[in-house]
Amino acid sequence: MKRNSKVSTAVIRRLPRYYRHLSELQEAGVVRISSSALGKSMGLTASQIRQDLFCFGGFGQQGYGYKVDILKEEIGDILGINRGHTVVVLGTGNLGRAIIENFRFSINGFRLLAAFDISKQVVGTRIAGVPVYHADELEEFLSKNQVSVGLLTVPIAAAQEMGDRLVAAGVPGIWNFTNYEISFNPEKVVVESVHFSDSLLALNYMITQRELQGIAKDSEESL
Amino acid sequence: MKRNSKVSTAVIRRLPRYYRHLSELQEAGVVRISSSALGKSMGLTASQIRQDLFCFGGFGQQGYGYKVDILKEEIGDILGINRGHTVVVLGTGNLGRAIIENFRFSINGFRLLAAFDISKQVVGTRIAGVPVYHADELEEFLSKNQVSVGLLTVPIAAAQEMGDRLVAAGVPGIWNFTNYEISFNPEKVVVESVHFSDSLLALNYMITQRELQGIAKDSEESL
Repeated sequence: MKRNSKVSTAVIRRLPRYYRHLSELQEAGVVRISSSALGKSMGLTASQIRQDLFCFGGFGQQGYGYKVDILKEEIGDILGINRGHTVVVLGTGNLGRAIIENFRFSINGFRLLAAFDISKQVVGTRIAGVPVYHADELEEFLSKNQVSVGLLTVPIAAAQEMGDRLVAAGVPGIWNFTNYEISFNPEKVVVESVHFSDSLLALNYMITQRELQGIAKDSEESL
Repeated sequence: MKRNSKVSTAVIRRLPRYYRHLSELQEAGVVRISSSALGKSMGLTASQIRQDLFCFGGFGQQGYGYKVDILKEEIGDILGINRGHTVVVLGTGNLGRAIIENFRFSINGFRLLAAFDISKQVVGTRIAGVPVYHADELEEFLSKNQVSVGLLTVPIAAAQEMGDRLVAAGVPGIWNFTNYEISFNPEKVVVESVHFSDSLLALNYMITQRELQGIAKDSEESL
């Protein structure tokens, strides 16, 4: 597949959404979809969709739209779904446990190998079938297993240290749920953070804008 | 404060990060910061920072940088931190519980009023001091309390229905953790979704790119 070498971050950020939508369409039995219909369900214009997909070589056929299964597979390839990536979870508090029990790693192309914690209550047990080891055993585990991503749900105070240990052991990706901006050498590791507070604040901004517009509208009406 | 009426989504998405960074700087006792130092800690250029903040009226003073507390307060105002917004949590599974117990709603300007569930084990109890009511009582609660945001952590099968009930009761914001793309009339409600899988897939893409570059580099070296 031909691809433009320069793909914008915005396009990359939209690719997982395409993948998710196409998976839902496939499950619903949709075989073919036009760019305008795909756009409508995703809140994008048809031309934006055509542009996005063109960045990766362009898969559409004029007048026929896109074949859902092929497009999904090609986007999955771009996203690295079939590369056999693996993940370990560091920290099995409520959030770590929720993710282990509910997040569908496999449909996102990951195998969840193990979890690590320091609490005597959980070390040696299994959560949803996943073995929980003591954090002291992390380096030994990483030396014996190819791990692509370390998911961090440890307390903030331990975030940087545990991240450093992952990087030192050569783990190429960190998925950071600690709500703490850990800092690493970007040549050694890719960090993707899920900041709940950023998301809530963006929502707060949007609600506030509507309230202010409502107030402005009310005072116009009362003139 | 003067503000440009058209502010791009990208700038809005960065504002919470500014707020978070400035909070950390304030806690660390930093009084004043230059745009280049702020940029460095956030991975942005000084000129991008000046541009972003200029969109909201521009607070910097040539040669003196920004006063951390004032900038934080002004960005907080823009984000609606001090508007007394409130939130209820729908669904108290592991993820809902993790958020109730650990997420610092108050520093993000929200009061967490209540949680709702249908399980006999939790209805009538408190989680971290927050009362859990039966989902049947939702409408009555919403009629008596001003609720700004409904946080959805219910199972996917219940996501749309519970969201519809929030919207029908006039709740202006939905914070969606169900990993399901719920669809609402955008004139009635603002939806902000936290899609874990989109985040992991973006990380997967970045790791894959590095692997491919590594392979390309290796084969170049072996030529």
